[in-house]
Amino acid sequence: MTNVTRYRDQFQAAVDTVRQEGRYRIFRDIRRKKGAFPRATWFKDNLEEKNITVWCSNDYLGMGQNDCVVEAVKSAVDAAGTGSGGTRNISGTTRYHVQLEEELADLHDKSASLVFTSGYVANEAALSTMSKILPGLHILSDEMNHASMISGIRNARTHKHIFKHNNLADLEAKLKAIPADAPKLIAFESVYSMDADIAPIAEICDLADKYNALTYIDEVHAVGMYGPRGGGVSEQRGLMDRIDIIQGTLAKAYGMIGGYIAADKVIVDAIRSLASGFIFTTSIPPSTAAGALRSVRILKITPEVRSQHQERANSLKARFRAAGYPFIDGDTHIVPLMIGDPVKCQAISDRLIEGYGIYAQPINYPTVPRGTERLRFTPSPFHSDVMLDELMSALSQVWAEFELPREKVA
Amino acid sequence: MTNVTRYRDQFQAAVDTVRQEGRYRIFRDIRRKKGAFPRATWFKDNLEEKNITVWCSNDYLGMGQNDCVVEAVKSAVDAAGTGSGGTRNISGTTRYHVQLEEELADLHDKSASLVFTSGYVANEAALSTMSKILPGLHILSDEMNHASMISGIRNARTHKHIFKHNNLADLEAKLKAIPADAPKLIAFESVYSMDADIAPIAEICDLADKYNALTYIDEVHAVGMYGPRGGGVSEQRGLMDRIDIIQGTLAKAYGMIGGYIAADKVIVDAIRSLASGFIFTTSIPPSTAAGALRSVRILKITPEVRSQHQERANSLKARFRAAGYPFIDGDTHIVPLMIGDPVKCQAISDRLIEGYGIYAQPINYPTVPRGTERLRFTPSPFHSDVMLDELMSALSQVWAEFELPREKVA
Repeated sequence: MTNVTRYRDQFQAAVDTVRQEGRYRIFRDIRRKKGAFPRATWFKDNLEEKNITVWCSNDYLGMGQNDCVVEAVKSAVDAAGTGSGGTRNISGTTRYHVQLEEELADLHDKSASLVFTSGYVANEAALSTMSKILPGLHILSDEMNHASMISGIRNARTHKHIFKHNNLADLEAKLKAIPADAPKLIAFESVYSMDADIAPIAEICDLADKYNALTYIDEVHAVGMYGPRGGGVSEQRGLMDRIDIIQGTLAKAYGMIGGYIAADKVIVDAIRSLASGFIFTTSIPPSTAAGALRSVRILKITPEVRSQHQERANSLKARFRAAGYPFIDGDTHIVPLMIGDPVKCQAISDRLIEGYGIYAQPINYPTVPRGTERLRFTPSPFHSDVMLDELMSALSQVWAEFELPREKVA
Repeated sequence: MTNVTRYRDQFQAAVDTVRQEGRYRIFRDIRRKKGAFPRATWFKDNLEEKNITVWCSNDYLGMGQNDCVVEAVKSAVDAAGTGSGGTRNISGTTRYHVQLEEELADLHDKSASLVFTSGYVANEAALSTMSKILPGLHILSDEMNHASMISGIRNARTHKHIFKHNNLADLEAKLKAIPADAPKLIAFESVYSMDADIAPIAEICDLADKYNALTYIDEVHAVGMYGPRGGGVSEQRGLMDRIDIIQGTLAKAYGMIGGYIAADKVIVDAIRSLASGFIFTTSIPPSTAAGALRSVRILKITPEVRSQHQERANSLKARFRAAGYPFIDGDTHIVPLMIGDPVKCQAISDRLIEGYGIYAQPINYPTVPRGTERLRFTPSPFHSDVMLDELMSALSQVWAEFELPREKVA
């Protein structure tokens, strides 16, 4: 018998607290249908199978079902097997990893890149290591930064300054208050995933220049989707050369898993040599690297996929606008429909999937601030007009059923 | 122009320090040959191709080239596509994930399990979260614990006590000094990967009982390889029911990538609900879960693979013993050949791969303490007698060339 019995109440209390706050997560058990995405099967209660349409995937461009990507994965598995079998240093660096890192460096026009097991680990490892390299570092962090950046900055155990979201005046005030000769780094995102807004990148770079700060941008919700070659918002705006460290993911637009940083070779080499979360973990499988490589290469030369993606998002926003739904009408591909209550948000999500086969996961605290609970829609180029019609019809009925307000339509 | 120029010297200095200590890592760029493992191709200097035999892989049982595992991966890719497209909570839980977690819970005879993106993340996330659930927690940690556990314990920011490696007296002294009613957790490994030794698990559990401590064991170098069904050393010794949290990996014996914990449902539910490194990251691809599921199921019912594995390790150890090489003669499948100098260790490794096609990566600080640098051999069931002969012949020549000492042979 283990000792868990003595501690059971405390574990139970932790779970109960989460439950009482209406944010206990019940994972939907699904299986996507390759070739028919966003259609998928939902295994309700581990039993009943139900056809659904996924409206909340971060496989934003449907590259997870791209035939060329699938073939790249399968042929790498056939050539080299499944796992890499080691850390990057101990037999876990393969041809695929090397080529992928060359490709990602080229994508962002940097002299090097470094692949991690996830975007989360990339942020955590890179940011937490910066203070080892730059003692006395001051990190300035946007208040809406992702949990992985918060974690990395926290674990850096150095001077930390949280500036108001996308607020240049607040950022400058904080920069000004730091001794001029102290090392500084500004960490922020390009596309903020939950509010669907975009940082004032050029202006942040101006401040970085003025106060001698390094710039670190998280482009995970932008790479593949913005810029002539998919280099992200910093490429779209012609600003890649003003960012010191660009962090991205292979798990969203590129349809695989893994994360990376792209930067000057000396930065990459230092992080590569010192970051625990990079050094002491098995590298991504050769086939993952192969699939990501193919996906990055495809999206470099297919800007029309990006146009289709934006068109679909704009189409959904136009319908939401016409129907008077309270959504965040931003400049990105993400369409958050605001509910503002965790229990109601969950109930609406349940009703949508059970009654209409529409899968939009409720987004609750701590992913978003309490009181701003929402359903977050991410239409892909594969979300057809028919699917948009299905969604609007379902929402209309659920909106009436829950007696939710609509905004006055102009 | 970015601001990196202002900071370049400091990044360069960090790299130079690593280099001066003889521990600058140059990753070997290889490609394993599925079906011929441990044979592989080495891409020397990004150019020349050379045939090598991998002697340092953690794909301990060669499951990364198992035909059934490969088929499971490929058919899941065909069915569901490549990436999962979301966090576990936001469309990233699939049939494959659910089945894998059921299988892993069963493997360790626990009521639940939880899969993470890596074993590193499993340790970091689980351990760092424990102090949120158990305020005032005292964590007792073996001094040789893996970097991921150290990171998790550090990030838990709670009372920490490092006990001497596998030293029960020191562990008890530290337990005794902690207030009796304070929550406690003992974190340790079963097989220590670099020294190839095994923890006194039963005795540690006895102390845990005596002092009311939770037990957390890292079995990453044991799952799949020890125990009647591959449940690890704790299964082999009939002690699984005395361990509260068993942590394992899918990236070594199971030939894939990913990590997990298995524990009582309430523990898993609490960590699932609170661990940032679990919540805010894309889940492992469906095909990774499918391959791991197949691999776990195969190794549950093929104890003969475990026997072959031990036989190969014993065969290598017998040869090293007969030749008088200074290796750690432990009870596990890992065979560390001690060199004791980082520069010499690298030079010998270089000579072995360049002259003889033998790939054994030098293991230097910080992976092992300075002065204990080594080559670490991990023979698999696929390392044939011919390969053993090749290795012994190469080592003999290199040993003479470097004028290294041999121990007196009895």
